[in-house]
Amino acid sequence: MAILVVGHKNPDTDTIASAIAVADLFSKRGQEAKAISQGEIAPETAFVLEKFGLAAPEIVTDATDQQIILVDHTDISQTIDNLDKAELIAVVDHHKLGDVTTSNPLEMWVWPVGCTGTVIKSMYDFYNIEIPANVAGILLCAILSDTVMFKSVTCTDQDKAAVEALAKIAGVDDVMALGMEMFKVKSAVDGASPEELVFRDYKDFDMSGNKVGIGQLEVVDLSMLDAHKEALQAEIEKVKADGRHSVFLLLTDIMKEGSEMLIASDDAAVVEKAFGIAPNGTSVYLEGVMSRKKQVAPNFIKAFEA
Amino acid sequence: MAILVVGHKNPDTDTIASAIAVADLFSKRGQEAKAISQGEIAPETAFVLEKFGLAAPEIVTDATDQQIILVDHTDISQTIDNLDKAELIAVVDHHKLGDVTTSNPLEMWVWPVGCTGTVIKSMYDFYNIEIPANVAGILLCAILSDTVMFKSVTCTDQDKAAVEALAKIAGVDDVMALGMEMFKVKSAVDGASPEELVFRDYKDFDMSGNKVGIGQLEVVDLSMLDAHKEALQAEIEKVKADGRHSVFLLLTDIMKEGSEMLIASDDAAVVEKAFGIAPNGTSVYLEGVMSRKKQVAPNFIKAFEA
Repeated sequence: MAILVVGHKNPDTDTIASAIAVADLFSKRGQEAKAISQGEIAPETAFVLEKFGLAAPEIVTDATDQQIILVDHTDISQTIDNLDKAELIAVVDHHKLGDVTTSNPLEMWVWPVGCTGTVIKSMYDFYNIEIPANVAGILLCAILSDTVMFKSVTCTDQDKAAVEALAKIAGVDDVMALGMEMFKVKSAVDGASPEELVFRDYKDFDMSGNKVGIGQLEVVDLSMLDAHKEALQAEIEKVKADGRHSVFLLLTDIMKEGSEMLIASDDAAVVEKAFGIAPNGTSVYLEGVMSRKKQVAPNFIKAFEA
Repeated sequence: MAILVVGHKNPDTDTIASAIAVADLFSKRGQEAKAISQGEIAPETAFVLEKFGLAAPEIVTDATDQQIILVDHTDISQTIDNLDKAELIAVVDHHKLGDVTTSNPLEMWVWPVGCTGTVIKSMYDFYNIEIPANVAGILLCAILSDTVMFKSVTCTDQDKAAVEALAKIAGVDDVMALGMEMFKVKSAVDGASPEELVFRDYKDFDMSGNKVGIGQLEVVDLSMLDAHKEALQAEIEKVKADGRHSVFLLLTDIMKEGSEMLIASDDAAVVEKAFGIAPNGTSVYLEGVMSRKKQVAPNFIKAFEA
């Protein structure tokens, strides 16, 4: 029975590309492995997979009695159902360490870099295994996506070096042109429902016992969202009402490098506690804030602890 | 301020050697780091450090406001005090994944091998940093100790390859002779109090909400312990009475490759649940069982879940 390689719920390009690459790498190391997904892939990911001729992983949401490798997360709230009834044999990630635990020794590759794809590039090198051109292509896109084309504060020199090496393997001549093409697909908001937009890149966190959701929409120009803001606010109020303390939606302008955050919360004072800026009604503009992982989630975690 | 590199409570040779080596490695990578210990080193470790001319790390037990690297554990019950008030920047380990979490991305090197020293050898190679001869010597001893000179079920080919490479760097001609010398120091029981013997290699676990302690004494011949068993049983009963559900003491015969386990428990039926053998009073012999990490702790964790 193949090991299942799975990323987080609400899969993004990094989670899907990493699952496919790690399945390839482990299979070539002699442990047959298969990438799965916990849900439908996003439009950006569909674009990337099609570009490099790869199929979307099968959707599997139950880990019972399986051998599992996690990519791109270690939080129980973001992971496959019944992970506690599975055997977790490896983790490849670039986030904070979450609350997943194991009862047996395992393999973990976790680095503080901008993208899981960057870690996987080094794993291929470490095990001296050649990266297939199409896998290099999707890992390259994952890094461009997660680092917002190197603009995110999470981006490191290792991410840039990985993109350079992967571009050669994938035969991509103009990395930035590919990135812009990808972000235009990601930015497309017209025709999508408010629910689709809120959950396009959404994660639930446990913060000091409070369930807190944070979504993020990255666009090339915030004005694209003007016609949608009212409906997005109503949607996050609805999501909050379903047993959450707060739901925040980051509207990130990747060219201006800042985020407007929409707020639905039982106690909006946590926003000022977290960022030192009082919200204007249900919204606040956070200059320079582009990373949920490095700038938003840690500040809220601390604010909820205080 | 230097990053502090720290292993588990009740430090063994792997935890101390790993702290010293990782501090060396991170310092050479440009992040000044210093090994510390959470307690007095064991006689075996003192022998190893003296053999290779290294000093025991300073004892520091409070992590408040420090930058921390953990080696050889990820369990809160085994870690330095106030880790939640510190910044955890890296983990190097070879155990199951415990309940330590972080609020920021970090670096983790965790492999299912016999010893943290084996992981560290690969880290030096990965970062292309030369291992000093004395550091190679203590890492080599750590691997011999943790794998019981390659006899433990936790021992992998990677551990054996690491020892071979480290022996060359350290200038050790006869690895097994050094191992036997080390185990004789470790086995010395005369002159030690029952408390010293129980805590020589002891760990507390949280098992489904129950506090469970497991100690281990490795000797070259079980009969060395005959005169001590009664006192050891009384000592683990005392440790159990201090808020624990159970305390188990493994008396491991490294030549016969099996362990007698002394039992102090609120519900001794967990022993039969875990190993399928009914204890004879407060003791049971477990043929082939030498590893707390891979054979004893996982079985008890499952038995407590049932």
